[in-house]
Amino acid sequence: MARGQHRLTVVSNRGPIQYAQLDGERVALRGGGGLVSALRGLIGNHEVTWIVCAISAEDHVVAAEQNGRALDETDAVGNAFKLHFADPAPDDFAAMYGTIANPLLWFIQHGLYASGEDPVISTDIREAWAGYRRYNAAVATEAAMERDCDALMIHDYQLALVPAMLREAGVDAPILHFTHIPWPEPEAWKQLPVDLRTELLHGLLGSDIVGFHTQQDVTNFLATCEVHLPQVTVDRERACVRMTIDHVARDVHIRSYPISIDPAELRAHMRNPEMIAAHAELIRTRPEKLILRVDRTDPSKNILRGFHAYGRLLERRPDLHGRVQLLSLLDPSRLAVPVYANYLKRINAIAAEINDTHGSDGWLPIDLRIGDNFPVVVAAYREYDALLVNSIADGMNLISKEAPLLNERDGVVVLSERAGSFEELEPWVLRVDPLDVEQTAAQLERALELPQPERGERAAAIRAFVEDHDVARWIDLQLVDLELLAEARA
Amino acid sequence: MARGQHRLTVVSNRGPIQYAQLDGERVALRGGGGLVSALRGLIGNHEVTWIVCAISAEDHVVAAEQNGRALDETDAVGNAFKLHFADPAPDDFAAMYGTIANPLLWFIQHGLYASGEDPVISTDIREAWAGYRRYNAAVATEAAMERDCDALMIHDYQLALVPAMLREAGVDAPILHFTHIPWPEPEAWKQLPVDLRTELLHGLLGSDIVGFHTQQDVTNFLATCEVHLPQVTVDRERACVRMTIDHVARDVHIRSYPISIDPAELRAHMRNPEMIAAHAELIRTRPEKLILRVDRTDPSKNILRGFHAYGRLLERRPDLHGRVQLLSLLDPSRLAVPVYANYLKRINAIAAEINDTHGSDGWLPIDLRIGDNFPVVVAAYREYDALLVNSIADGMNLISKEAPLLNERDGVVVLSERAGSFEELEPWVLRVDPLDVEQTAAQLERALELPQPERGERAAAIRAFVEDHDVARWIDLQLVDLELLAEARA
Repeated sequence: MARGQHRLTVVSNRGPIQYAQLDGERVALRGGGGLVSALRGLIGNHEVTWIVCAISAEDHVVAAEQNGRALDETDAVGNAFKLHFADPAPDDFAAMYGTIANPLLWFIQHGLYASGEDPVISTDIREAWAGYRRYNAAVATEAAMERDCDALMIHDYQLALVPAMLREAGVDAPILHFTHIPWPEPEAWKQLPVDLRTELLHGLLGSDIVGFHTQQDVTNFLATCEVHLPQVTVDRERACVRMTIDHVARDVHIRSYPISIDPAELRAHMRNPEMIAAHAELIRTRPEKLILRVDRTDPSKNILRGFHAYGRLLERRPDLHGRVQLLSLLDPSRLAVPVYANYLKRINAIAAEINDTHGSDGWLPIDLRIGDNFPVVVAAYREYDALLVNSIADGMNLISKEAPLLNERDGVVVLSERAGSFEELEPWVLRVDPLDVEQTAAQLERALELPQPERGERAAAIRAFVEDHDVARWIDLQLVDLELLAEARA
Repeated sequence: MARGQHRLTVVSNRGPIQYAQLDGERVALRGGGGLVSALRGLIGNHEVTWIVCAISAEDHVVAAEQNGRALDETDAVGNAFKLHFADPAPDDFAAMYGTIANPLLWFIQHGLYASGEDPVISTDIREAWAGYRRYNAAVATEAAMERDCDALMIHDYQLALVPAMLREAGVDAPILHFTHIPWPEPEAWKQLPVDLRTELLHGLLGSDIVGFHTQQDVTNFLATCEVHLPQVTVDRERACVRMTIDHVARDVHIRSYPISIDPAELRAHMRNPEMIAAHAELIRTRPEKLILRVDRTDPSKNILRGFHAYGRLLERRPDLHGRVQLLSLLDPSRLAVPVYANYLKRINAIAAEINDTHGSDGWLPIDLRIGDNFPVVVAAYREYDALLVNSIADGMNLISKEAPLLNERDGVVVLSERAGSFEELEPWVLRVDPLDVEQTAAQLERALELPQPERGERAAAIRAFVEDHDVARWIDLQLVDLELLAEARA
């Protein structure tokens, strides 16, 4: 694997395209989503074959037609790549998605379970795990067909078993698996029964490089291997796990690559007429002091405590009544999973309660908007005075990078110490312990009151950092490590 | 501190005596409780002054009369000791008991919170923490008056701040603090805000020895200090934490001393007529195969998953219907704390559901008895074929030591890998992951079917272990370490 342009096989559950039938014709819907945007630079600069899971009805038709050969496609900005569908059984996909990935792995990895009640490891979970395994195998089978490449890059917790399956299939190109959600401490993994936990770890350790967003995740992963896999050797200094199978040793490198955004792409949105209109509307209606939160409606985002903290701020500072508003742009998420549907209900109830308690005729304390409304998000990024990101746990949290990049009012970022981005942005944000609503209220107050030039200095520093540490750098760091690995082998 | 008899100051929230008014006269009620029984040997063999918190109305009267001087008292078996009351303000006691110790510290240390919802660190928590601190200070003030001794032994999470307060007061006798509940990994401690967490750790590190039941707790405590107290040095090899204050270094030793029982005392109960009657009654009514669980109604005990597992066993093995029964002797606990009251309701509901589903005219699948009924407990210890202890987390769990000691049917112990006692009893029990109801069902089935001579060998091995590792040994190990410490100083 030489430096420069590479032939790469990317593997992920969702990819840049879904097919649909529209008026009797097949159309390709080119969507966004964090990972797809993040990997755009990869497609633009390298020869990429992307293995994705067939999800729509038309995807299944295309998958049946492809007959083992990748399709020539283009992404949303016109870059060419090859698309190769995996087509796991719908039941296996459902088990992976609705039982194992969400909520089981998501809840364990974000520390969301109260063990007194959940999870209950039952026959249902074991049957779903078998589905998760078959789903991974279906994807690995297709990925193995694209083994003739410089490296395979496999994404996220839906596909944790794929690396070991590829190795088993004799794939010898370097394999990097990237986990986009937090990796908790060994104790948390006791929530997954020992056989499943061992299978998950061995799945990931089929890679040459196991990637995470933060150094904390790397530390926790090494500790997890040390505690839960007595047969491997963990070298914390070199951040690697040594596997010895039939007297042959192999090192798996555990690395952090903090994901980021594409500043130029994000800025380009501001020139879009729809975005300009949304911005004009927000300027017209905005309060004197605008607090913003933008999130999926996921318990890990800690929306309820965020509302409580804002309520405490209103109690402490009656002088702010009528002058401040918390704009909450919340994208409904995973509503088919009961705990998520219930969470959205609670969000609505608590926002209503705070509005009832503190609001008045001309003033709505919380402007709660449930839905996916990107133009308003971009407008609000430009306009906030304080941004609240108080996640209980968060792999990275790109909002804390996007919003400061576009902000035009020297807005202050109030950031959870448990968001992945806190590792990078700590010097310039106001830190909050996500469980501490009183401290969160105090930091929101401080964010609104912080004087110049400090506001401007903090905001400028985050902008400069994000400009410099963009998504291209995220990809480059991974490719450099893969190159070094290939050189070391050669 | 020479070997042999010592002058010891014991400090705990509850002690061996509460006073009451009965027909216009003061009477001393000599109670039991795990800690009091465990420390009986201490009173019998050493010169003990016991600092306890005044709890009853009459305790407060006695506390007011004592005027800084300890009272001569005797414990339930007639051994003499000195009793010295601390008398914190009732509000501080309530804050300590109802908010900080239970549920906050208890839930954090047993991993029972779902962070998406609880804990919410609010002004209420901080105010309660101030009460917890004042409660600790009130106890420390009295304990400092009894500083003229060979060592101070302070018990449990209610009194975590006392060691540092004693050191601050200039007490120079060796201090040992013992935590009777689990110490979780560093990550779990993020649920306590940084200032409270730091205060708690520094409180404990005022000791010369910090004691726990298991080696896992020791490992976790060292890791917690390493992660959350950057200013101290952790020496994992020597299991100590080095504190450096004003250029003076001081080592705090972190040690495990697994608590145990007094075999002779427990066996003596069997000769009590009430116990004999309960045993006769149980022999008359018992099913062919008796499964037993004995617990407080605490979410950490995992009673709901235990019932579910038993329900699964009944589904898998219809041939057991009518022949097996799960006798559940549950002591209601902390019902003034809402989460506990709700837990008891769920216990009743799920037991009723399983009885409705599987039961028949002559057969009650779960015999659920809520209440404190020690004679029946002792009888059931003798009679079980399988004992189920499936705690989510448990400092030690003495039931898993008591029951096998008395059992007369070569009963098999099904034990959670997360109970403290698992570290000692692992070779002879059937291991369960407490979250895995399917595995728990399978292990219950195996426990009922396990053939001789294996049943007898396992049962005998546990009995022999408990005989050899009794509560006297638990105390002796601590005293030896305190003696060595005193010698090293001299």
